[in-house]
Amino acid sequence: MKYLMGIDIGGTNIVCGLVDLEGNLVGTIKFATDRHKAKEAIIDQITVKINELLLQEQIGMDNVIAVGVGTPGIVDPIKGISILSGNLHWKDVPLAHWLSEQVHKPVFIDNDVRMYIYGEAMAGRGQGYDHVFGLTIGTGIASASVNKGVLYYGGGYLAGEFGHIPMDGIEEPCHCGLIGCLETIVSATGIARQAKQAIDRGQESILQKWVVDRSYITALDVSKAFDLKDELAINVMNDTGKMLGKALSHVVPLMSPDIIIIGGGVAAAGNRLMIPMRDELQRRLHPMYWDRLVIKPAQHIEFAGVLGSALYAKSRL
Amino acid sequence: MKYLMGIDIGGTNIVCGLVDLEGNLVGTIKFATDRHKAKEAIIDQITVKINELLLQEQIGMDNVIAVGVGTPGIVDPIKGISILSGNLHWKDVPLAHWLSEQVHKPVFIDNDVRMYIYGEAMAGRGQGYDHVFGLTIGTGIASASVNKGVLYYGGGYLAGEFGHIPMDGIEEPCHCGLIGCLETIVSATGIARQAKQAIDRGQESILQKWVVDRSYITALDVSKAFDLKDELAINVMNDTGKMLGKALSHVVPLMSPDIIIIGGGVAAAGNRLMIPMRDELQRRLHPMYWDRLVIKPAQHIEFAGVLGSALYAKSRL
Repeated sequence: MKYLMGIDIGGTNIVCGLVDLEGNLVGTIKFATDRHKAKEAIIDQITVKINELLLQEQIGMDNVIAVGVGTPGIVDPIKGISILSGNLHWKDVPLAHWLSEQVHKPVFIDNDVRMYIYGEAMAGRGQGYDHVFGLTIGTGIASASVNKGVLYYGGGYLAGEFGHIPMDGIEEPCHCGLIGCLETIVSATGIARQAKQAIDRGQESILQKWVVDRSYITALDVSKAFDLKDELAINVMNDTGKMLGKALSHVVPLMSPDIIIIGGGVAAAGNRLMIPMRDELQRRLHPMYWDRLVIKPAQHIEFAGVLGSALYAKSRL
Repeated sequence: MKYLMGIDIGGTNIVCGLVDLEGNLVGTIKFATDRHKAKEAIIDQITVKINELLLQEQIGMDNVIAVGVGTPGIVDPIKGISILSGNLHWKDVPLAHWLSEQVHKPVFIDNDVRMYIYGEAMAGRGQGYDHVFGLTIGTGIASASVNKGVLYYGGGYLAGEFGHIPMDGIEEPCHCGLIGCLETIVSATGIARQAKQAIDRGQESILQKWVVDRSYITALDVSKAFDLKDELAINVMNDTGKMLGKALSHVVPLMSPDIIIIGGGVAAAGNRLMIPMRDELQRRLHPMYWDRLVIKPAQHIEFAGVLGSALYAKSRL
């Protein structure tokens, strides 16, 4: 039996997954990304872990036909180069070539969010839909679209920076240098920051009892406070969900997706965000869009990137 | 020599064009759309005009290999049906079939804006660019995108309703039933309405001398007043251009077009709109997008739809 290897490189963890040709996940291995290491050392480490995973699953390297890698930032998938990743401090890294020299297999790379949404489109929630628009909400927020099984890249492979749409009503400077980018609100960091700033403005919250230094408040803390009916946390989640709904109301008339898939760590906030998001989006869409639109959380929250990378490598063979 | 026939059905005029296989316009004929006529009568009229055009150019019907039609509203290009056109009062009209029965040629239909932008992408300003995003600004505003020569449709063929993105800062009800749609500002009707409402609010303008009943003010009047440094007209054009720039700042990070082409009647306003649009867009975009983005007016303002329809028919053969 033949297999694919999918690798999802994140700022915090790297996940390797063995995937069969039908898109079923056979086994995985996860390890911390050591961002202080040289890029060559990270690639050596990935090679070691690929071999560890194969040993664990008792599959020989001969049975692996291709390796796919999703990596953060701007990627040239044709040349196999990671052009720029602020998170990993990478610039013009010929990742596909280097890894291919180590594992002696064809290696194909692409942006991590595109790989995640490709995984959901081909082997997850997007199956059966022609036009898939997907988001991953984590530290930041980004998007990808898959139309009839084909990823959309845009000029310079730069499509999908949904987090850097400047939104009215946001005054916050973004790390990218612009003001009011969507991801300053709709992201784990955005949720935590809103809570912290509300406390700075003198609002009461249970969060003050939980976290002594408010700069350590996390989005998960805000979710927990929401569940205890904490007013500050409810407002933050409402504002965040509404802002996401507003941003999506700019996407739908333009692209008319059949399904919007919401993945990434913050998707775990579930209805705390999804209810205000849906309310705002419905209010802003013509019924001809709203009535046919499906909105779903991702199916393979943790492993969509690995699945997508593996299936993408298969599509490139 | 073989030819294609392109037909652009508008709410005001219908244009038929004879196009060679390389995309050169050989001859055209233009006539008023009689919206009070039955749809069958309009199709009869188109057939008469096609024959008139062939006679005028001394080309036999035998030399025409296919007919393409761009028609307003929602179109199913695969079934060849005009699903809904508010302007023409059409609903589920099997236009391709009916016209094909008359001219005994393969007939392919699509939405008029998609055909216009397809014409610009394949035989106009978009040549040489992989990712073309185009707008037509006339009575309303709509968009289409062509990626590596392929039109993007979206689910239900509903992509491209750029005019019905709800924008912050617009309070105006739209004819579609929503509030604050982009086209209530960025369109010929939007420009005229803004001028009229400013006069209603007591602002002085040369327009008051030109037009006794202010409900007859047109976008062209506002352009002319702008050229005479009329303050009201300058403000209306600035606000309209800025609003367009703001709306485009939501498109570019999402889709990363290589070129934005601006067509339709209102494109004739040129720099009166384009300068404030560009200023606002640049302010709102990361340089990695702005520095590579090309923005151009359409090349075949009046005949892009005819060219696009003809070349589209060729692509469907």
